[in-house]
Amino acid sequence: MTVLVVGSVALDSVETPFGSADDALGGSATYFAASASHHTKVQLVGVVGSDYPMDKLRVLEGRGVDLAGLEHAEGESFRWRGRYRHDLNSCETLETRLGVFSHFRPKIPAQFKNAKYVFLGNIDPRLQLDVLGQVDKPKLVACDTMNFWIESRRDDLVELIKRVDLITLNDAEARQLTGESNLVVAARWIMARGPKTVVIKKGEHGAFMFHGTQVFFAPAFPLESVFDPTGAGDSFAGGFMGYLAQTDDLSEANMRRAVVVGSTMGSFVVEGFSIARLLEIGPDDIAKRIADFHRLVAFDATSHD
Amino acid sequence: MTVLVVGSVALDSVETPFGSADDALGGSATYFAASASHHTKVQLVGVVGSDYPMDKLRVLEGRGVDLAGLEHAEGESFRWRGRYRHDLNSCETLETRLGVFSHFRPKIPAQFKNAKYVFLGNIDPRLQLDVLGQVDKPKLVACDTMNFWIESRRDDLVELIKRVDLITLNDAEARQLTGESNLVVAARWIMARGPKTVVIKKGEHGAFMFHGTQVFFAPAFPLESVFDPTGAGDSFAGGFMGYLAQTDDLSEANMRRAVVVGSTMGSFVVEGFSIARLLEIGPDDIAKRIADFHRLVAFDATSHD
Repeated sequence: MTVLVVGSVALDSVETPFGSADDALGGSATYFAASASHHTKVQLVGVVGSDYPMDKLRVLEGRGVDLAGLEHAEGESFRWRGRYRHDLNSCETLETRLGVFSHFRPKIPAQFKNAKYVFLGNIDPRLQLDVLGQVDKPKLVACDTMNFWIESRRDDLVELIKRVDLITLNDAEARQLTGESNLVVAARWIMARGPKTVVIKKGEHGAFMFHGTQVFFAPAFPLESVFDPTGAGDSFAGGFMGYLAQTDDLSEANMRRAVVVGSTMGSFVVEGFSIARLLEIGPDDIAKRIADFHRLVAFDATSHD
Repeated sequence: MTVLVVGSVALDSVETPFGSADDALGGSATYFAASASHHTKVQLVGVVGSDYPMDKLRVLEGRGVDLAGLEHAEGESFRWRGRYRHDLNSCETLETRLGVFSHFRPKIPAQFKNAKYVFLGNIDPRLQLDVLGQVDKPKLVACDTMNFWIESRRDDLVELIKRVDLITLNDAEARQLTGESNLVVAARWIMARGPKTVVIKKGEHGAFMFHGTQVFFAPAFPLESVFDPTGAGDSFAGGFMGYLAQTDDLSEANMRRAVVVGSTMGSFVVEGFSIARLLEIGPDDIAKRIADFHRLVAFDATSHD
């Protein structure tokens, strides 16, 4: 199955203790697509300005990403500039210029409307709702969000989560949305309002999946060197959704595997700037890291004797 | 096998959003012993003042904790007072009164000297080294430490870690000790100086065990209500060391299980004040939670088809 993603396509300028990148490919839909493309075909809906380096983005086409839903608007592309400190855990946003993204109104091409797997990247919940009105009958709709929308578009966001099957958000966002500091309670709060599945991402501390009465946890892979954390969450989502679409199996066992695939893709993207590592790796790298993940958490629960 | 613990025996006064406790049993050796006593016999070495409520502490004797090494000194017991905020992640120390603990000089009773499993709780590294001179030939020596000793007794601490098999410390302490922000690199730094095994505790985010070339990770158990985080690290250590002493098996597979047992004991202690929960639970509760831990991280690494 194909996966449809709606989100931002941006140019990121990032400073880390290990180097910097200027106007590199970024945005939630870009990371998602680069990650998901390792698992299945991707349909991307977004907008870029007239200054976007399309030659670089078209590399994704060669990987099975359909850019027919990418709108080309007059003006500047969405630009984000940020700086990571020494420990890479805190990121300071230095500049956000929305450009053509500020007038983005997603238009789902006719040939994308029957998508069975839909990921609504982190954009205005009103636009996310609007997309839901444009697609036919998806088998699984997932959405992401961020603190800005939780503050400014709370009612729309609550309306949205009534209508999605799954939501991914980070621990701070889960606490902010629900007013609950305990993540188990926060996940329950969200599930009571709609989604059957809640994925709470904790960055370097891993990710929880709450699914019905079940809880699954996957750590972040312990890397010796993390280069640039940008895009880890969207690459996680791309791996997760891409794997689900590829296997077309929503059993709990398969969703657990999807979380591990997501964590695996997130662990690769942070090894380089932008989507660079996602363009380098192949199936063997992914399979090897999934096996490493398994060893990382494996223990024999039976008693010693 | 019996496990020997040397550490503090204190009176804790704790405020949390859910209530408060005054002069409750606390201290690293107390938590360790209460936790380890679920798995094996414990020998405790520490000091209390003339004001310590020995009737309460003697409950541990009924659980197989030998208090022959507990010195009774004239004066006030070690008292700690702290307050946890809303999210329970940050603790503010309101008062520390060392009392008789400030002159503590551990004396290992003759009948404890042949201990095979030794845990050097968080005390002055000079005293930890002194204890090593008093015991015969332990099979496994583990130590804990804290930021205060890393700052004030760095050389002694580095000398100590040359002589222990295993060290437990939290992520901030690991970074402080090694000057490395990456925990994988920090663990390597420590292992290069002595210990075959490094356990890095991340509180609510779980624990890593680095053992030779292997890495194992166990999450903290996702509880719906955490009551009081005090003593989680020492209860982890008590479960970990108690299980190793009980099984007397230092294979990597068994050490992985020991980490899970430690996480399990840590997950119980935070459900109540002081050691209250550790006195309530039994083998069935522990076995059930270990099984829950297994379900929490279990996934089938083989590909979908």
